[in-house]
Amino acid sequence: MRNSTRSGVDPFIVMDVMEAARRAEEAGRHIIHMEVGQPGTGAPQGALEALARAMRHGPLGYTVALGLPALRQRIARMYGEWYDVDLNPERVVITPGSSGGFLLAFTALFDSGDRVGIGAPGYPSYRQILRALGLVPVDLPTAPENRLQPVPQDFARLDLQGLMVASPANPTGTMLDHAAMGALIEAAQGQGASFISDEIYHGLEYEAKAVTALELTNECYVINSFSKYFSMTGWRVGWMVVPEDQVRVVERIAQNMFICAPHASQVAALAAMDCDEELQGNLAVYRRNRDLMLKGLPEAGFTNIAPPDGAFYVYADVSDLTQDSRAFAAEILDKAGVAVTPGLDFDPVRGHATLRFSYARSTEDIERGLERLRSFMADRQTPQKSA
Amino acid sequence: MRNSTRSGVDPFIVMDVMEAARRAEEAGRHIIHMEVGQPGTGAPQGALEALARAMRHGPLGYTVALGLPALRQRIARMYGEWYDVDLNPERVVITPGSSGGFLLAFTALFDSGDRVGIGAPGYPSYRQILRALGLVPVDLPTAPENRLQPVPQDFARLDLQGLMVASPANPTGTMLDHAAMGALIEAAQGQGASFISDEIYHGLEYEAKAVTALELTNECYVINSFSKYFSMTGWRVGWMVVPEDQVRVVERIAQNMFICAPHASQVAALAAMDCDEELQGNLAVYRRNRDLMLKGLPEAGFTNIAPPDGAFYVYADVSDLTQDSRAFAAEILDKAGVAVTPGLDFDPVRGHATLRFSYARSTEDIERGLERLRSFMADRQTPQKSA
Repeated sequence: MRNSTRSGVDPFIVMDVMEAARRAEEAGRHIIHMEVGQPGTGAPQGALEALARAMRHGPLGYTVALGLPALRQRIARMYGEWYDVDLNPERVVITPGSSGGFLLAFTALFDSGDRVGIGAPGYPSYRQILRALGLVPVDLPTAPENRLQPVPQDFARLDLQGLMVASPANPTGTMLDHAAMGALIEAAQGQGASFISDEIYHGLEYEAKAVTALELTNECYVINSFSKYFSMTGWRVGWMVVPEDQVRVVERIAQNMFICAPHASQVAALAAMDCDEELQGNLAVYRRNRDLMLKGLPEAGFTNIAPPDGAFYVYADVSDLTQDSRAFAAEILDKAGVAVTPGLDFDPVRGHATLRFSYARSTEDIERGLERLRSFMADRQTPQKSA
Repeated sequence: MRNSTRSGVDPFIVMDVMEAARRAEEAGRHIIHMEVGQPGTGAPQGALEALARAMRHGPLGYTVALGLPALRQRIARMYGEWYDVDLNPERVVITPGSSGGFLLAFTALFDSGDRVGIGAPGYPSYRQILRALGLVPVDLPTAPENRLQPVPQDFARLDLQGLMVASPANPTGTMLDHAAMGALIEAAQGQGASFISDEIYHGLEYEAKAVTALELTNECYVINSFSKYFSMTGWRVGWMVVPEDQVRVVERIAQNMFICAPHASQVAALAAMDCDEELQGNLAVYRRNRDLMLKGLPEAGFTNIAPPDGAFYVYADVSDLTQDSRAFAAEILDKAGVAVTPGLDFDPVRGHATLRFSYARSTEDIERGLERLRSFMADRQTPQKSA
């Protein structure tokens, strides 16, 4: 059968890494997983218990398209608690993961051929979903001195209909402070570009609190998810906050595209929001892992890293070591038994010389992985010197 | 904020009916729900038990984008059992409901501006999702003598890049037999149009077995779901069967658009496939309900109905009673306390004179609903005669 042009999206390279790691494990090797973008933990215990109860009591059929009212209200309350933002629950839309939020936001805001600016490096699916919808992703190459985040001059001369930012970002973990976020919002709105803020890593921050775009403007789409801080990746439930005058249009698209987010996941998510103790325990593990990474990676020879303000990633410039990050990642998997992600997923232009390390797994894994990276890099240098 | 043109999708009118019914119930009235498109039953018990076990044993993180291998294999086996079709499990893609299947199929096959034929009346979201993706739905008005299903001459002179059919169909419940399905496939392929078969109501059939397009060709996309026969609407899990050379392109789109279908729902779905006894019990209820409807609706005065071969709907031409199905449905809700769906959701042109009755709820509800419809229609005729 003939395929559309828009279907020609790139594969996730990280998936190939995961597959290679799986094959190595199948062959009996022990692999440390620093390639994955998800917590090693599952949904909090309280979430599982709430779902187990709900399964005994009702059919868990379709919910309304905007999601369970109680969940929308609880999320709105969280904006008060986390950011001191007073949010109308009517503006909260429950989505099938942040992925569902991207589909809804892009569809609500953009027409075929519209151009949407995204920071490079950035989450690969922004680019791919935009393309799949017949829209045009416009990479904004970011600078290390800007924490690898876009700044207004990166798109001042571009004709954009939208700007998408992420803080903390994937793959870098870097954040936008109030001033940086405010400048981007002002510049985008000044150009007539719709502003979308991906806040999926909020709650996973180590130096300062993450800033939500809603502290600065109501004229934006904010996308979030239960996958990261709430540790519920496989449940496919997230949310989006939109301006009041956008609720109805988003509702209609959601009715048609998704009917609703998974009911069981919505029940679990609501309960997860009252599981602070367990979730803060997960966060303490990430914090310990991050400290180990910030010490261990430079010791191993990965010295040029972006400031990992949040999330659970470290993004390293390895241009002093390779110009082929894919081959380098394969070598690290083969020789060190550590799976890492080449930067090409995140930055098609400069990713040939970068790697992403995830520290979302157990501290023991991180310790062993760093030890393996240290000896791999030491071995790698020794024969070169003796050659 | 400015919205895209593609975001201007129509609302589901059935949602307005549901909301009106909810308000009536809130005001203390008892309403019989013949408007809903979902079973009154929940997931089978075995599915819930399997999930309860799985929640105790693993984190239920992301699955691979194509879905749990065991579920893909089990679905392939079902094609042998149900249709005597030998299906390679690699061709089965697990989706977030049939909604996810539509998004994947339309994206994989069509580019901005491409024209896709859909039968009218038909499931409203076909039209809306196509529009939201920047594609062009082309309504094919169907004829009663063709069981309100499209036939090749309906699109022989149209320039279509795709044809989407459904059997059993929503809202009519009518089916395509081997000959009718084969003729559509041949005609579509002869015009170079990709053929998509929505088989979501398979398993809910009362006179003859439903025909899968896979009995006739491998060169098609088949979309199905656990929502109807398997009674798992709110779980948002379905599947799609694609030609072997389409798996990789669909996988890449799915990776980016969804990451995966909900893991918990996949676990439950796999177990649901071994819950035949309970599911056949549900089917027996629909069969009893259908018999009651086929007797009771004509008695009440709804005499012009499409042959309800499958699904759990009866679609009635009420042009002898009204030219405003929306007002008529509102009147039925108000005076009879029965919620029904005006045909406008399904057929923008002729739906002003049709209604859809669902018989997915309990037999007791159907009996009471029919009794109410009978006395409503009797009352309605009496004052007219005396006027």
